[in-house]
Amino acid sequence: MKQLYDYVDAHRDEYIALLQKFCRQPSISAQNVGIKEMVDLIVKELATIQITPEIVETSGNPIIYGEIKGKNENRTLSFYNHYDVQPPEPLEEWKSDPFGAEIRDGKLYARGATDNKGSLLSRVCAIKAYQAVYGQLPLNIKLIYEGEEEVGSPHLSEFAHKYPDRLKTDGFAWEGGSKQLDGPLEVGLGVKGLLYIELRCRTAVSDLHSSNAAIVKNPAWRLVHALATMKDANDRVTIDGFYDSVKKPTDYEMDCLKTLNFREDKTKERLGLDGFINDLTGVPLLEKLYYQPTANIAGFKAGYLGDGAKTVMPGNAVVKMDLRLVPDQKPDEILKLVREHLDRRGFTDIEVVRLSGEPPFRANPECLFAQTVIKCVEPVYGMKPEVFISSSGTTAMYQFCHDAGLDAVMFGAGNEASNIHAPNENIILEDYINAIKMAATVMEEFAKA
Amino acid sequence: MKQLYDYVDAHRDEYIALLQKFCRQPSISAQNVGIKEMVDLIVKELATIQITPEIVETSGNPIIYGEIKGKNENRTLSFYNHYDVQPPEPLEEWKSDPFGAEIRDGKLYARGATDNKGSLLSRVCAIKAYQAVYGQLPLNIKLIYEGEEEVGSPHLSEFAHKYPDRLKTDGFAWEGGSKQLDGPLEVGLGVKGLLYIELRCRTAVSDLHSSNAAIVKNPAWRLVHALATMKDANDRVTIDGFYDSVKKPTDYEMDCLKTLNFREDKTKERLGLDGFINDLTGVPLLEKLYYQPTANIAGFKAGYLGDGAKTVMPGNAVVKMDLRLVPDQKPDEILKLVREHLDRRGFTDIEVVRLSGEPPFRANPECLFAQTVIKCVEPVYGMKPEVFISSSGTTAMYQFCHDAGLDAVMFGAGNEASNIHAPNENIILEDYINAIKMAATVMEEFAKA
Repeated sequence: MKQLYDYVDAHRDEYIALLQKFCRQPSISAQNVGIKEMVDLIVKELATIQITPEIVETSGNPIIYGEIKGKNENRTLSFYNHYDVQPPEPLEEWKSDPFGAEIRDGKLYARGATDNKGSLLSRVCAIKAYQAVYGQLPLNIKLIYEGEEEVGSPHLSEFAHKYPDRLKTDGFAWEGGSKQLDGPLEVGLGVKGLLYIELRCRTAVSDLHSSNAAIVKNPAWRLVHALATMKDANDRVTIDGFYDSVKKPTDYEMDCLKTLNFREDKTKERLGLDGFINDLTGVPLLEKLYYQPTANIAGFKAGYLGDGAKTVMPGNAVVKMDLRLVPDQKPDEILKLVREHLDRRGFTDIEVVRLSGEPPFRANPECLFAQTVIKCVEPVYGMKPEVFISSSGTTAMYQFCHDAGLDAVMFGAGNEASNIHAPNENIILEDYINAIKMAATVMEEFAKA
Repeated sequence: MKQLYDYVDAHRDEYIALLQKFCRQPSISAQNVGIKEMVDLIVKELATIQITPEIVETSGNPIIYGEIKGKNENRTLSFYNHYDVQPPEPLEEWKSDPFGAEIRDGKLYARGATDNKGSLLSRVCAIKAYQAVYGQLPLNIKLIYEGEEEVGSPHLSEFAHKYPDRLKTDGFAWEGGSKQLDGPLEVGLGVKGLLYIELRCRTAVSDLHSSNAAIVKNPAWRLVHALATMKDANDRVTIDGFYDSVKKPTDYEMDCLKTLNFREDKTKERLGLDGFINDLTGVPLLEKLYYQPTANIAGFKAGYLGDGAKTVMPGNAVVKMDLRLVPDQKPDEILKLVREHLDRRGFTDIEVVRLSGEPPFRANPECLFAQTVIKCVEPVYGMKPEVFISSSGTTAMYQFCHDAGLDAVMFGAGNEASNIHAPNENIILEDYINAIKMAATVMEEFAKA
């Protein structure tokens, strides 16, 4: 692959310019901004690698599907990515325009730079480079790009069930992956699930003068009292029955944690933390991060949110919560537990609205594709990967992979300081170039494995 | 006063147009919007009643002070008002532009229509009409207009101590007052105090991807757990020592409650309530409303506040609280109690920031001016007033009146459905016109009392 690596290095500027072009096009699924324009941009780009994709319409954002034949017609590799991005807010914490794609100190800063445009394009550029250097690809490639990953992939399952042939493959590469800054690339084999809900409470027609607080129920206080029953001060979720379906990690899963190179001090420094929850450290910290569920307050909105003092009593309050789930928790079962928990305590006035749900998923770490990916890391990065049984995050793996029997493997262009979903998201340009080489290497090696 | 009342009725349109002009000029102290323009507008208007006011600069917004001599040189009446308004948010709940001053069905809708531009102008127009009908005013008038009432009057006390002569008066009319829709005008003789604070918690440098929620403290959860210790589910404030300095209402004060015409059903209907806190009704409801302190969540801001789902963990969270105080609670003592309460429970990571404070205040209900105002109500409104020992709300009476020995009396142009501090604030035009007549009557009667 020396010849290909040299070609990639020689065309570095072209690949970076392409990433800038993609990042400058907002494509915010939660706010329905720029989706159509983003799809057009992708279709135009795929034409340069001889792929004319189908735009599969859904009742949400379209899924882009493309395929191209390779020399080994009996071996197929699929790349799943998403073209939508998280909202950029809070805007005031960005050092440059979230859609400016400014390059500073070897990093490109933009919403979506890593998650997921960098990874998506690393694979497009790998195909581009492979075609330029060797001609026909070594194996069949399928591309599946969705536009609603950041809002919980509500239509991906529909696609999987409607077009089972398009999911048929021998190796399934999931959207991306991370890497330690000066350490190993991560290869991921599973994800947590997710239940995203809103707790809503309205007690009056509108916000009121706060003198009314003496006699009118305050919806923010109602939510505070309800939430206080859902988690204790030691971060244990106290929703009735929440842990009942959580599987205890196996010895093998616990052993995997010991091989991880989690640098606690650097993480604390980077995120500005005094310490981790409950002052955890070592394997118990990693167990909580990768194998335990969460109940996170993602947003709390009530009353006056501007500067200064406004003496108002909210008429309405909303809490957004995301609960990360682990095997064998199921989103709809957890949703039911939340409702019952609140009802049992008299919080029948609090509405629980399900925004999205995704069960947890884990692949078989022994499958051919997983082992091939793991083997390809050292030639590109100069060191062996860390192998994660489960990510601490979530993607829509289950609905896509579970029924189709796919063992999805995650690797990509991100790193631990990419700030995905947060202000100042960025990608290290070197990571992006290496991800192109890695994707090309995986194509080459999996074709003959 | 028949001649004057007729004159006021004949000039109704002129007075309404003047109120529209004032309401169309935003003057939002919390956001520092339009203050200078508002001051210019007032100065111009006062010139029409032969008053050239002083603009008393403070380190915040200026205080406008004016005076004019009357026939009875030994009797002075002072009008305190404020020219600033609350922020108009949430904008989406307004049916017309908050600064459009649209008139619909005999009401003028605008932020500040009642609080406090309507009351302020009712007194200006009373002077205007008196001068037109009778020439010189019957007694000396002093006008004191501040521009920071809605942010807790941080500079009013400084003014009072710097210029004690300007406070010397025989009767002191406070900013305004309310009225039942088809019932009696309210005359108010006291106010609750107010402590406005922010509880702030930051646990990380910025908002993070919510997968971090497994191991990073969430500041919104910290605030939820802290708040849950500060009030119980029955609306009893549980801040250690909070009720220690609350004076039990006297028999006379309790008797006053029995004379009030509080229409519970109408209030519930207007505010869209299922019921009052703890299903209170009758005198216990009124006691809570007028004689008990509150601890209100005025705002809760954390994480993602937009539409849809964003899987983010807040790095920072803020709760705004206003605590309405009753004799003998003092803002700074309560602030200390809050800090100690949190420290005692390990919430030392939560910052408590005082935005403003105002002690409660009560006037002597037997004083000459209070008795005169009470007597003037029936001739104008055709029924006796309700007399309130204390309002459920707050104005900066204490700092102004306590040291100067002033017995402030409240009456004005508002009504129970004015929506002050809330969307769709409005003033009934008839109330505004009656308030002009009332102010003129008070001048006339107090001059000879």
